[in-house]
Amino acid sequence: MQIMGRIEFDLDVLKPHIPSNYGLAQALEEVPGVFYVQIKTDEIDQKTTSIFITIKGTEELSLEAIKEKLESMNCALHSVDRVQIDKRT
Amino acid sequence: MQIMGRIEFDLDVLKPHIPSNYGLAQALEEVPGVFYVQIKTDEIDQKTTSIFITIKGTEELSLEAIKEKLESMNCALHSVDRVQIDKRT
Amino acid sequence: MQIMGRIEFDLDVLKPHIPSNYGLAQALEEVPGVFYVQIKTDEIDQKTTSIFITIKGTEELSLEAIKEKLESMNCALHSVDRVQIDKRT
Amino acid sequence: MQIMGRIEFDLDVLKPHIPSNYGLAQALEEVPGVFYVQIKTDEIDQKTTSIFITIKGTEELSLEAIKEKLESMNCALHSVDRVQIDKRT
Amino acid sequence: MQIMGRIEFDLDVLKPHIPSNYGLAQALEEVPGVFYVQIKTDEIDQKTTSIFITIKGTEELSLEAIKEKLESMNCALHSVDRVQIDKRT
Amino acid sequence: MQIMGRIEFDLDVLKPHIPSNYGLAQALEEVPGVFYVQIKTDEIDQKTTSIFITIKGTEELSLEAIKEKLESMNCALHSVDRVQIDKRT
Amino acid sequence: MQIMGRIEFDLDVLKPHIPSNYGLAQALEEVPGVFYVQIKTDEIDQKTTSIFITIKGTEELSLEAIKEKLESMNCALHSVDRVQIDKRT
Repeated sequence: MQIMGRIEFDLDVLKPHIPSNYGLAQALEEVPGVFYVQIKTDEIDQKTTSIFITIKGTEELSLEAIKEKLESMNCALHSVDRVQIDKRT
Repeated sequence: MQIMGRIEFDLDVLKPHIPSNYGLAQALEEVPGVFYVQIKTDEIDQKTTSIFITIKGTEELSLEAIKEKLESMNCALHSVDRVQIDKRT
Repeated sequence: MQIMGRIEFDLDVLKPHIPSNYGLAQALEEVPGVFYVQIKTDEIDQKTTSIFITIKGTEELSLEAIKEKLESMNCALHSVDRVQIDKRT
Repeated sequence: MQIMGRIEFDLDVLKPHIPSNYGLAQALEEVPGVFYVQIKTDEIDQKTTSIFITIKGTEELSLEAIKEKLESMNCALHSVDRVQIDKRT
Repeated sequence: MQIMGRIEFDLDVLKPHIPSNYGLAQALEEVPGVFYVQIKTDEIDQKTTSIFITIKGTEELSLEAIKEKLESMNCALHSVDRVQIDKRT
Repeated sequence: MQIMGRIEFDLDVLKPHIPSNYGLAQALEEVPGVFYVQIKTDEIDQKTTSIFITIKGTEELSLEAIKEKLESMNCALHSVDRVQIDKRT
Repeated sequence: MQIMGRIEFDLDVLKPHIPSNYGLAQALEEVPGVFYVQIKTDEIDQKTTSIFITIKGTEELSLEAIKEKLESMNCALHSVDRVQIDKRT
């Protein structure tokens, strides 16, 4: 299914200490359609870090592509806290 | 009855874990008149998820069409927390 | 008495479960001078629902016409929490 | 004394149940220089209602004229909580 | 000393019940350089009222002239809570 | 070292009762590069007053010049709570 | 890897009392791509100071260059609390 306009996601993600927030942001930036990535640290545990990711993109962006990228970097998508689709942009 | 201008709804909805927030947003985006959909997770229970949906649309948008779409995806409209009609837009 | 400009009301209203917020908003939208209606649910009891209504309109809008419309739909105007008249608009 | 520009008042007023907020706003709107009146209900007692009034006007507006209008409608000006004079407008 | 641009003061002042806030605002408005006066009531005691005054003016405005005006009206400048000088304006 | 653009400081300063906030603001305004000074009173003790100073300036502004001015007026720079350098302005 | 657009970092850093916040801001300003540095003091201990640094820059900016600069000044990067990449700017 093709979606027109702008799409945004707030993601709750569990990641190992490697990749770093910076490395993960750089990788997500390369997913087709992405033009904005923000990663904030929520909680640091012994082996993992809970992070909040906000991703904004064009109609090209798909959650599946984001999931694949996250998994390829050993990160687990815990939940999609917000989805926003805006056709006007 | 025909309504001119822009209309907005805040909906309190109970959904099964499938469809995902993303899948539901994509489906609602296809309801006639809709140009904006935002879905936020409120609470995740064992079999269901409580979500808040904000939908914005043109005069074409009807609550009935939204309800039908929600029901066709096994989601229950719990309450309409906000209705806003603005003829100026 | 004729009032120039824009007028706004915040109304505290008690309504039966029928009409719905959406139906009531559609009806209020038809009152002469009204260009904006927002209805938020405050509290849902067994037989009634407390709602907050914000109405904006032009000089044509009169509180009497709003009251009549509310009563014709079995809604009781509990109080007028805010009145605002602005001649500049 | 002549004051140039815009003047604003926040007034704490005690009124009987009649006039209504709407009736009082309509009357205050007729005071020379007034272009904006907002009335909010603070507290409703058995015989009186405490209200907050914000009035904005041009240099023509005088507090004396507002007081007279209030008294003519059986309202008592309890205090002037804010006075603002701005010559730039 | 000459200061270019805009200057602002937040003043904590003790005044007798006469002059009123309105009378005091009108008097302060006449101090050279003043273009904005706001007076808010802080606390009303038996013989005095604590007020907060915000005054904005051009380079002409001097705190000394404000003090003189306050004293001529039996008001005591308790403290200068904020001074702001902005040469860019 | 030469810095391009705009620079801002939030300073925590201890001053004797003389100079006044106003006198100190006037003196700081004369430091090369300064175009904005705001002084707020934090706490008044028997012999000293704790104040918060925000200073904005151009590339010409140096913290050393501010320190010297403060010391020449018997004020002690307790800490630099915020430094901001923005080359874009 | 080359990143287009604007990049921002919120850094949690531990520094000795020397360099000062001002000295550190001046040094970070010289890292390639940096156009904005803000340093706020979080907590002052006997030998060290916890600070929050916000850095904004162009695509040229790399976290590695920031880390090197910090280490060369005896500062330890405790954590990267926020990374933001925006290709639209």
